[in-house]
Amino acid sequence: MSKTTQRNPTREGVLAAARKIAAILSPTPLLPFEVQGKTAWAKAESLQPMGAFKIRGAWHRLSDLSEAEKANGVVAVSSGNHAQGVAWAARKLGIAATIVMPEDAPQVKLQRTRSYGAKVITYDRMSENREAIATSLAEELGATYVHAFGDPWVIEGQGTAGIEIADQMLALTDKPVSRIVACCGGGGLTAGLALACPDADIIPVEPEGWDDICRSLETGEIQNVGDNPPPTACDALQTFATQPINFAVLKERCHEWARVSEDEIRQAQDFAFSNLRLVTEPGGAAALAAVLTGKVEVDDATAVLITGGNMDIARWSELIRDIR
Amino acid sequence: MSKTTQRNPTREGVLAAARKIAAILSPTPLLPFEVQGKTAWAKAESLQPMGAFKIRGAWHRLSDLSEAEKANGVVAVSSGNHAQGVAWAARKLGIAATIVMPEDAPQVKLQRTRSYGAKVITYDRMSENREAIATSLAEELGATYVHAFGDPWVIEGQGTAGIEIADQMLALTDKPVSRIVACCGGGGLTAGLALACPDADIIPVEPEGWDDICRSLETGEIQNVGDNPPPTACDALQTFATQPINFAVLKERCHEWARVSEDEIRQAQDFAFSNLRLVTEPGGAAALAAVLTGKVEVDDATAVLITGGNMDIARWSELIRDIR
Repeated sequence: MSKTTQRNPTREGVLAAARKIAAILSPTPLLPFEVQGKTAWAKAESLQPMGAFKIRGAWHRLSDLSEAEKANGVVAVSSGNHAQGVAWAARKLGIAATIVMPEDAPQVKLQRTRSYGAKVITYDRMSENREAIATSLAEELGATYVHAFGDPWVIEGQGTAGIEIADQMLALTDKPVSRIVACCGGGGLTAGLALACPDADIIPVEPEGWDDICRSLETGEIQNVGDNPPPTACDALQTFATQPINFAVLKERCHEWARVSEDEIRQAQDFAFSNLRLVTEPGGAAALAAVLTGKVEVDDATAVLITGGNMDIARWSELIRDIR
Repeated sequence: MSKTTQRNPTREGVLAAARKIAAILSPTPLLPFEVQGKTAWAKAESLQPMGAFKIRGAWHRLSDLSEAEKANGVVAVSSGNHAQGVAWAARKLGIAATIVMPEDAPQVKLQRTRSYGAKVITYDRMSENREAIATSLAEELGATYVHAFGDPWVIEGQGTAGIEIADQMLALTDKPVSRIVACCGGGGLTAGLALACPDADIIPVEPEGWDDICRSLETGEIQNVGDNPPPTACDALQTFATQPINFAVLKERCHEWARVSEDEIRQAQDFAFSNLRLVTEPGGAAALAAVLTGKVEVDDATAVLITGGNMDIARWSELIRDIR
């Protein structure tokens, strides 16, 4: 990791990022839905131009690179949403981007990342060490490695969703946001939301078996996923462990968390399709699954992040068959 | 029709409606997408609380009823989106609503209309006269008949989407909106948009064979659909003829129009799913189909209405099979 990343993320950094994001992207809508006899609010980050909140952190990080760093390009590793976020920001800033992606990533994510002009290198998710591939590649190219979650700019950038939520919740309900439920892969978004909204409960949700952050919070120390994690449709949430820069924030701020099953996630995707008219990818619907099942309670000012909507339409067809 | 509907819709009425709508509903997002080598803007009315723009006209009409009229209830006839709009507004205002719906309406629309507390009466779309059923029902109940498109309040209410588009386009592109492409059933939305945006081209799009407004514009006189219109997935656009109150506006303002095929509409639904992460119903994607096929040209400040997203998930599965 380049030395510029050795600092802690801050609330001031989130606010600075929010001003930069507001200059190029409209706030995503906060959409009401009925659950547990109350009205909860879905933050539709799936409606970002590249279909996920990852555009926020990528933009904050890439736009803060020095001219020399920009000239040397960036490297990232991602199953597809951070990939597209970095590729999108790189194109807009004229920076060369090389992205390391698992070979089983959804086709729509591979295609879209390439369509933004990034160079894509694939690897085998279960047998190869993606961090090692990416860091040695960055070294070789002299490029900046933009970590998908363990980076202060990325954390601050993702946190800008929380600044928007706080403003929108107050405008829509006259209440400060009290609870934010978010899916959790490596903890970049969750840590960013915690910094953005110091007075709200921040509740991470993971797929069953990929619950390293739940177990880290339960034990007070960073835990890895087990040796043989189960298959999951949530490609965006398949991280093996969080990083100290994230966990330092999460440990202080997360007092509730939840695990959801693959079937609960499918039901949430169905709900989002039919009731919110939103296309969600599995990982993008995990937090919604937690509130629909009642695993996480909502109150009168609860926001639920819909984090991504990059779903292969062919896989969607299989998903419907599984539900109905 | 009750005598209160005997007036012409006006731009002032649209502006008054826009103030009322802004007090209860957030603006729907205007989302960029690439087409014809340009950036066009999708107005996602599918993200309204009941999944379609119809909530606008229904709210303007019902909230302007006198206390005596409110006490006597409302009657509407609709394949489902106007039905849900009226039912939603009626529940919020404590008004009894009776809705006449075709028996082959999408299940999701029938269920949702009932879930808002409306009484639903079904009829056979091709053999029974829905207007006659509804007007005699309204007379019997002493209720106000809220026409789905031939009503000045409804036209003005639908036009509020145009007020939002004008504001958003200016904020996002620094340009006044120059072209608005909208699907067209009876012409309520299109007439409203024309009043809302006097300097923009207003371009109606109809499904092939349900092109009564295209033919009316071509001949200068209101035409009906033919005797045996073809089957269409666009239940929301199956109107037999526009009304003089709508056509008076359209005749003056529409100089371009387009017809799209069922297959072109399916492709547009696919595009919306994959590129905009929006669930669209067939009728809701007709205008998008017209720009994706190049039947309607876009410029640097073109808005395309995505009018509705109330799609049975089971029918969606069939649709995917037909495309891929």
